[in-house]
Amino acid sequence: MKIALDAMGGDFAPFEIVRGAIDAVKAFPNIEVVLVGDEARIRDVLVEFGQENNPQLIIHHASEVIEMNEHPGTAVRKKKDASVIVATRLVKQKVCDAVIAPGSTGAAVAAALFGLGRIKGIDRPMIATPIPTPQGVTVMLDSGANANCKPKHMVQGAIMGSEYARLMFGKENPTVGLLNIGEESTKGNELCLSTYPLLEQLKTIPFKGNVEGRDIPKGTVDVVVCDGFTGNVVLKLAEGLVGVMTQLVKEGIKEGGIMAKLGAFLIYPVFKKIRKRLDHTENGGAPLLGVNGVFLISHGSSKAKEILTAIKIAGELVDRKIIENIQHSIEEEGAIKYDDVD
Amino acid sequence: MKIALDAMGGDFAPFEIVRGAIDAVKAFPNIEVVLVGDEARIRDVLVEFGQENNPQLIIHHASEVIEMNEHPGTAVRKKKDASVIVATRLVKQKVCDAVIAPGSTGAAVAAALFGLGRIKGIDRPMIATPIPTPQGVTVMLDSGANANCKPKHMVQGAIMGSEYARLMFGKENPTVGLLNIGEESTKGNELCLSTYPLLEQLKTIPFKGNVEGRDIPKGTVDVVVCDGFTGNVVLKLAEGLVGVMTQLVKEGIKEGGIMAKLGAFLIYPVFKKIRKRLDHTENGGAPLLGVNGVFLISHGSSKAKEILTAIKIAGELVDRKIIENIQHSIEEEGAIKYDDVD
Repeated sequence: MKIALDAMGGDFAPFEIVRGAIDAVKAFPNIEVVLVGDEARIRDVLVEFGQENNPQLIIHHASEVIEMNEHPGTAVRKKKDASVIVATRLVKQKVCDAVIAPGSTGAAVAAALFGLGRIKGIDRPMIATPIPTPQGVTVMLDSGANANCKPKHMVQGAIMGSEYARLMFGKENPTVGLLNIGEESTKGNELCLSTYPLLEQLKTIPFKGNVEGRDIPKGTVDVVVCDGFTGNVVLKLAEGLVGVMTQLVKEGIKEGGIMAKLGAFLIYPVFKKIRKRLDHTENGGAPLLGVNGVFLISHGSSKAKEILTAIKIAGELVDRKIIENIQHSIEEEGAIKYDDVD
Repeated sequence: MKIALDAMGGDFAPFEIVRGAIDAVKAFPNIEVVLVGDEARIRDVLVEFGQENNPQLIIHHASEVIEMNEHPGTAVRKKKDASVIVATRLVKQKVCDAVIAPGSTGAAVAAALFGLGRIKGIDRPMIATPIPTPQGVTVMLDSGANANCKPKHMVQGAIMGSEYARLMFGKENPTVGLLNIGEESTKGNELCLSTYPLLEQLKTIPFKGNVEGRDIPKGTVDVVVCDGFTGNVVLKLAEGLVGVMTQLVKEGIKEGGIMAKLGAFLIYPVFKKIRKRLDHTENGGAPLLGVNGVFLISHGSSKAKEILTAIKIAGELVDRKIIENIQHSIEEEGAIKYDDVD
């Protein structure tokens, strides 16, 4: 198993990215990591940890980097030797089995589409994000690859998300919901109104109808389908809300004197248990489903721990044959009549 | 000051609604509440509390009720004597100064549009929801009146939301952000891409550019503009997330034994303080801005406390002349060149 890692991606590259790779090859003896990026800078980190001769860690030089503020489409066309492009090419050429791209989502999606193409039957790739719930995990897609979606993209997302939920989270026959603003099929924006009857006609997917915002953290269904604009707002809102609440509690304890501090100490195991219970998702990254190769997008703020996890997840996605399974489920579903509404 | 209250709206009507009105007229001697709905049932509640002769509480009979599952447009046309329609008519006829409608948002919006019409220069009314933040309040609109919005609706929303934030939350020159999935003006879905330059050209509004999901709970700007689909998902997600977290903490404390319970007891004042700090919004209802009359939509789950607060807010909206001020700010902004992009 060989995994191509964009060692220049994200806020803490290359140091934290390389460190994550070092930890990963220790933990997973069957995995080799190809570190793609500035050879000298990557080597420096390997030397620092005495890993420059580790045969599981291979440097693959790439002279350019796509910055966060660049226009993804333009950057991908211009910077042929950018680390994320080169890493993706290694998968296309079957040198590697998967790509991990920390950092700019836009650049990652562009690089993946450009370098790997799409699975037959898929018009747009989607980012699938596992969201922790009290029962386990709900997969939400698209969480940001396509700001504008058409009904057919939503239908394809339902099929891809189901495969991902089945293979990675052990859901036998995953239920699917359409993110909407009411339960009735007559509710919603134009996209939802057109998508609902298409999802209803799917033969292989147990479509449970509309779900609402509150159903996502509750885990009402296994897979939530939405457009990439809404999905991205949902993810960032949840992140912000948890962040603000945590900050307020910390400040409150600080200002609350000795009793509050003692209370916090006594109640800490409860919060630790909740965090553990919600930590099924192992925050390493979200796969870009629908491109013709395993492609994992990691958060721009990823440090060694997240990269280690991302490498583990990428390995599992390869092992469990996510691409072949999506291909198969698209074929199994057969012709979907959506040409008239797109 | 006379406020028309749909006494038949919401899950706990008429008992809790009438009880809220009784509490309100005690608290606000200058307010009269016109209770609209089934005369006998409303009278029963008044008699139960010995208030049947209170001159501040006036019953106005209405023979029909719009149920939660009815199609709003159809119901509003068919049920001419529905409580929400009759209550709205009282404002149109200048018998009352404001309407409060607990229950179905769709029916409320339809009744308001049908009964009051729009303020000149406003194409679509929007629901403005105050969201608590550590610094105070962020106003988000539209939070559910229009599942599909056009750029011009967003621009009008920015102006209406600013007036609301200024009049009700003391923001002198409220900042406005466009809810989007990236900071750059080139990011987002088609609606955002078309809306951004229009907001930029506003003369009277300090437009701060795009904000992301995480900025809503942080309170980065005073007014967040979005389409009603996204806004509704945001509200319900936040509600669900807070609910799930609270439930998990309660369960954890229950299972955590005596130490966890002691910890919870000691830390309780911290949480109480946070809740108070976040409770600037006084969860009584959200105004439907843009219709030609003060119209407040209360949650379907409203009990007496929420109705009391709604009556207080409705009174303030009338006192502070929200309608006249929106009218004035629309005129002051002058012609907005958006006809070509809608």
